[in-house]
Amino acid sequence: MKLGKIVGTVVSTRKDEKLEGLKLYLVRDLGLDLQEKDTFVVAADAMGAGIDEVVLYAQGSSARMTKATDKRPCDAVVMAIVDILEVGGETKFLKNPGQGQG
Amino acid sequence: MKLGKIVGTVVSTRKDEKLEGLKLYLVRDLGLDLQEKDTFVVAADAMGAGIDEVVLYAQGSSARMTKATDKRPCDAVVMAIVDILEVGGETKFLKNPGQGQG
Amino acid sequence: MKLGKIVGTVVSTRKDEKLEGLKLYLVRDLGLDLQEKDTFVVAADAMGAGIDEVVLYAQGSSARMTKATDKRPCDAVVMAIVDILEVGGETKFLKNPGQGQG
Amino acid sequence: MKLGKIVGTVVSTRKDEKLEGLKLYLVRDLGLDLQEKDTFVVAADAMGAGIDEVVLYAQGSSARMTKATDKRPCDAVVMAIVDILEVGGETKFLKNPGQGQG
Amino acid sequence: MKLGKIVGTVVSTRKDEKLEGLKLYLVRDLGLDLQEKDTFVVAADAMGAGIDEVVLYAQGSSARMTKATDKRPCDAVVMAIVDILEVGGETKFLKNPGQGQG
Repeated sequence: MKLGKIVGTVVSTRKDEKLEGLKLYLVRDLGLDLQEKDTFVVAADAMGAGIDEVVLYAQGSSARMTKATDKRPCDAVVMAIVDILEVGGETKFLKNPGQGQG
Repeated sequence: MKLGKIVGTVVSTRKDEKLEGLKLYLVRDLGLDLQEKDTFVVAADAMGAGIDEVVLYAQGSSARMTKATDKRPCDAVVMAIVDILEVGGETKFLKNPGQGQG
Repeated sequence: MKLGKIVGTVVSTRKDEKLEGLKLYLVRDLGLDLQEKDTFVVAADAMGAGIDEVVLYAQGSSARMTKATDKRPCDAVVMAIVDILEVGGETKFLKNPGQGQG
Repeated sequence: MKLGKIVGTVVSTRKDEKLEGLKLYLVRDLGLDLQEKDTFVVAADAMGAGIDEVVLYAQGSSARMTKATDKRPCDAVVMAIVDILEVGGETKFLKNPGQGQG
Repeated sequence: MKLGKIVGTVVSTRKDEKLEGLKLYLVRDLGLDLQEKDTFVVAADAMGAGIDEVVLYAQGSSARMTKATDKRPCDAVVMAIVDILEVGGETKFLKNPGQGQG
């Protein structure tokens, strides 16, 4: 999985019929220092995540292993919302309980 | 999925028989600022998209999950046409209704 | 799919038995300007393509969707020979009818 | 597979239900000289590995081939703990028996 | 497939049970000029290949299409040993019959 931050949304009315009802987010990759990178993906939301949330996304065929994305032409899915990130014994990220209700 | 812009077409008369009838587009990757990047893919069109349209494409086995590409040797498919792109609360892209009828 | 040019061949007598009879080509990636890039793959030939031909290759599990590569340990396949490449309304590549009979 | 070092953990209470009970590690890529690179993934732990251990991780659909990850939306898994790494006839890494019980 | 050279071995006693008996090699990527690159993978050996041999490896789900790797959490496999590499009509590599019995 990759660590990312939801930074925006994509609206599409003309899309494959199997994608109806799926929310599509712009997810920017994060470094271990939580800094935003230049790279990003468009990922389907399987978690009810919100703008600005730090999440994990899965890619490839694994992106179709959630109920929301099963057998769909979807190659990236937000499948977890990050609460805590610990690196080298330090807490690098701690989710604010009120965060991400975008 | 990746965000891209259709910039050209590929014509091939000698191709795997399962690809007959599929339109093949050159799709250039876009940044979050909608600038065209140097990278591109050749993607099958599952949407009736047109030249200059901003689209999403899926890769890998997920590219075979549309009716048009099922079980075909195709690893990239245009599966959505983008209407609106919102980043950080700002509308970065709004599809012109008359656009993309290429 | 990726756009490439066949620049060489690989001969291997000791290979997985399922690969017997498959021709293996060195395929160099091309830019939209048809310039050869530094990156390349080794791809099985499903098309009877020849040296110097401009082709498309598919990767990943999609590379196993041709008759020639079905269920084989092969992650890249030449599945189309390019006749015409059009970018921004200009013909960037037009296959010479006599080309590629290498 | 890729060579990596477990440098941290990710805690997530809201995640796809199929991921319940899976430990998620931050795994930094290593070079052949065992130096840590800038790139990393979040990988599920199928081995009972610990912080600071040098491991192998598998990606893509192969990441779902362990009991712990079968059919789960998981695209990276720690599937081996490295004991010895030999390059050019030299032992570049030898696991300390007491290491990694983090 | 990618062109690589076997430069080392990985020994792991604690690994997924399905990987028992598989030899794991460090395989460094090669350029078309046969120069070693900085990138490498850890690949299972399906060929009885040896140290210093020039090989092809397959990645992703295709890496599970050999008898040795079927349904295993393995995303890279050495599936061919290279005898001859020809680029632009020139022989860039010719396997020494005594080579690679490492």
